[in-house]
Amino acid sequence: MKTIYITRRETFNAAHKLWKPEWSEEKNDKVFGKCANKNWHGHNFQLYVTVKGVPNPDTGFVINLKTLSAIVREKVVEALDHKNLNLDVPFLQGIMASTENVAIAIWDLIEEDILTNGGELAKIKLIETENNFVEYYGGKEPF
Amino acid sequence: MKTIYITRRETFNAAHKLWKPEWSEEKNDKVFGKCANKNWHGHNFQLYVTVKGVPNPDTGFVINLKTLSAIVREKVVEALDHKNLNLDVPFLQGIMASTENVAIAIWDLIEEDILTNGGELAKIKLIETENNFVEYYGGKEPF
Amino acid sequence: MKTIYITRRETFNAAHKLWKPEWSEEKNDKVFGKCANKNWHGHNFQLYVTVKGVPNPDTGFVINLKTLSAIVREKVVEALDHKNLNLDVPFLQGIMASTENVAIAIWDLIEEDILTNGGELAKIKLIETENNFVEYYGGKEPF
Amino acid sequence: MKTIYITRRETFNAAHKLWKPEWSEEKNDKVFGKCANKNWHGHNFQLYVTVKGVPNPDTGFVINLKTLSAIVREKVVEALDHKNLNLDVPFLQGIMASTENVAIAIWDLIEEDILTNGGELAKIKLIETENNFVEYYGGKEPF
Amino acid sequence: MKTIYITRRETFNAAHKLWKPEWSEEKNDKVFGKCANKNWHGHNFQLYVTVKGVPNPDTGFVINLKTLSAIVREKVVEALDHKNLNLDVPFLQGIMASTENVAIAIWDLIEEDILTNGGELAKIKLIETENNFVEYYGGKEPF
Amino acid sequence: MKTIYITRRETFNAAHKLWKPEWSEEKNDKVFGKCANKNWHGHNFQLYVTVKGVPNPDTGFVINLKTLSAIVREKVVEALDHKNLNLDVPFLQGIMASTENVAIAIWDLIEEDILTNGGELAKIKLIETENNFVEYYGGKEPF
Repeated sequence: MKTIYITRRETFNAAHKLWKPEWSEEKNDKVFGKCANKNWHGHNFQLYVTVKGVPNPDTGFVINLKTLSAIVREKVVEALDHKNLNLDVPFLQGIMASTENVAIAIWDLIEEDILTNGGELAKIKLIETENNFVEYYGGKEPF
Repeated sequence: MKTIYITRRETFNAAHKLWKPEWSEEKNDKVFGKCANKNWHGHNFQLYVTVKGVPNPDTGFVINLKTLSAIVREKVVEALDHKNLNLDVPFLQGIMASTENVAIAIWDLIEEDILTNGGELAKIKLIETENNFVEYYGGKEPF
Repeated sequence: MKTIYITRRETFNAAHKLWKPEWSEEKNDKVFGKCANKNWHGHNFQLYVTVKGVPNPDTGFVINLKTLSAIVREKVVEALDHKNLNLDVPFLQGIMASTENVAIAIWDLIEEDILTNGGELAKIKLIETENNFVEYYGGKEPF
Repeated sequence: MKTIYITRRETFNAAHKLWKPEWSEEKNDKVFGKCANKNWHGHNFQLYVTVKGVPNPDTGFVINLKTLSAIVREKVVEALDHKNLNLDVPFLQGIMASTENVAIAIWDLIEEDILTNGGELAKIKLIETENNFVEYYGGKEPF
Repeated sequence: MKTIYITRRETFNAAHKLWKPEWSEEKNDKVFGKCANKNWHGHNFQLYVTVKGVPNPDTGFVINLKTLSAIVREKVVEALDHKNLNLDVPFLQGIMASTENVAIAIWDLIEEDILTNGGELAKIKLIETENNFVEYYGGKEPF
Repeated sequence: MKTIYITRRETFNAAHKLWKPEWSEEKNDKVFGKCANKNWHGHNFQLYVTVKGVPNPDTGFVINLKTLSAIVREKVVEALDHKNLNLDVPFLQGIMASTENVAIAIWDLIEEDILTNGGELAKIKLIETENNFVEYYGGKEPF
């Protein structure tokens, strides 16, 4: 039984800001710096979704990438692409729209659908800029 | 006299939307699609500024890249990074914030300063996503 | 009248080989090397299509990228993606499937449609590998 | 004893198709979509081979990258570059040429040689396109 | 308690050579090849620093990236950028300047500062060229 | 007669410094900043060599890329890879080793050989870092 990991990349472009309403403007600026800009800023996000499993003997697939892509596009890209992460996204309401929290929310959004399709979600990698990204393993600590 | 072209990359992350107030919501959606999202979206922009000239015999430089970088950061990145291109940028007021128009505005903003420092602005390349970019040569048609 | 250039990237994955039927196997191997492998090889091609024009005062667009993307996908990607360039592509029949010739054929395929949509095709860039690419300006010599 | 991981990238360009002879054309098309194209398609594959070990006190090396590169080129690149994965590769005969299966086959092909040279194969990463890749840890589940 | 990993990229350009003074020139050349060039060579190094933790409920941050970037720039980039790794860097004295050893030294240099700022250093990835990189997990073996 | 441009990428890793012996240390530091570090620094250079011509009717080639690659490797990479640009390279003696000057020297080194092989050298692009590069058209001003 040879476990292997397969990853699909999808992209979305979105606006957001880091701003805590309970805090003063000064505190927001001090903690979040430029990311607290009132009128938003934005990014080209790159999302890598990794599924683990054993290749199916008939297809050689852990999961059909058409299926995986369809899940991610329908559940994640549809909801986040060309959107404002703070204002337009129901499942991010009341959550600080940090890359960390967005990645965790994406995991929760698709974990079930991937399981239903015979795969097991193993990792979410979300790249915000060429200098910053997060990796989430469902809360586990693989390293 | 060996003319050569030197390019400096700087980056900025910004929000914008494509929306024409004189048009109905339907027309805006039809023409601009997802880019018309009311609550904005955003991008990691990559800006390439190309200067032409003959290398200085003492330094081997067309223009000192520290100088070129300082001009672009002070005039462009300071104004656009972590900003809303429609709301926060004086020199983009009243202009549709398309990549084309932003690139043209950047040219006008720095052409003079580069000349003052002994270079000649030759090209602005502005990358909006891995799939879309514009190139501007000051209105000239090199090809 | 400020001429500017806008570029759209599309991708396709295809098989091909370089093989001249009039030549002996020895000569094919000598000229084309590994690219003459009888059973084909393949590439992830990246296609950059550049259109020139003056931004429309209403939209800020040289050409609507949705339109440009639709032309390239319908005429080029549909015909070449997941295909064998030697066997499956009517407009490449009887032509050596070198990157040069594929780029020229792509120009001829979309030049008219872009003109009909108010743009002027300026350049085709076709990347075969990270080490090899061609650029075609409709036969003109911009440099 | 400080374990560290070193990775070497090699590339190869190959043709393949996903097609199960026992299945009807309809079923092949339904499951494999464009990848079932009869006349093949192809990719620029990027292969990352990761070896783990403790740096040698004399050289600072886990494994000499010249040695690692030579193993991968001789055993893998020689066999796969500018080849048809379905037709030209003895060790892939009778195996569905999915990225998963190719990665597993590559592991089996070089594991021993790396051990003989004092390293321990830790991971094979095989990138098929900018949107798809697999990672194999010899069947283990590191995460 | 949802553990997540956040990574910051910083870059530095440096010269080095691989040369063991106790060895003859012949042996140095045989083991280190071109890397033993007496007059040095150099690289654009890319350094990825990964910190693990649980997002702070107020900020959504594992660690403030401004803080993480400041630590890496002050302790690592300041010491290595535009330097000779063999001659100019106190903490690399007496150590073979292989990518492996540089990565291990970087870990030791910043582990404490990251802990003081509420994070836990999880991984150092150091890219020497597009074909070579190392990954270090503090000596642990996550896979 | 359809002129087209074909480009081959080759890479080399080298050390250099920017230092003018006739100047004081203060002046060198002021003009060249970190690049004046006495003990050198280095880069992964990427060299793109562009040749123009009309595809040969038999081969579809402007120039055989095996030939072009061989010229560049023999004349340029052999001379610069894993070398010190200031000390080890005969054709750069007495020249400030700026990216501009290295690109111009590379042009002069290979122009003739490319002509002998039926091509016409059109452009040298030399990338020093992800933020800095130069482009040289033999002294001409295409834009």
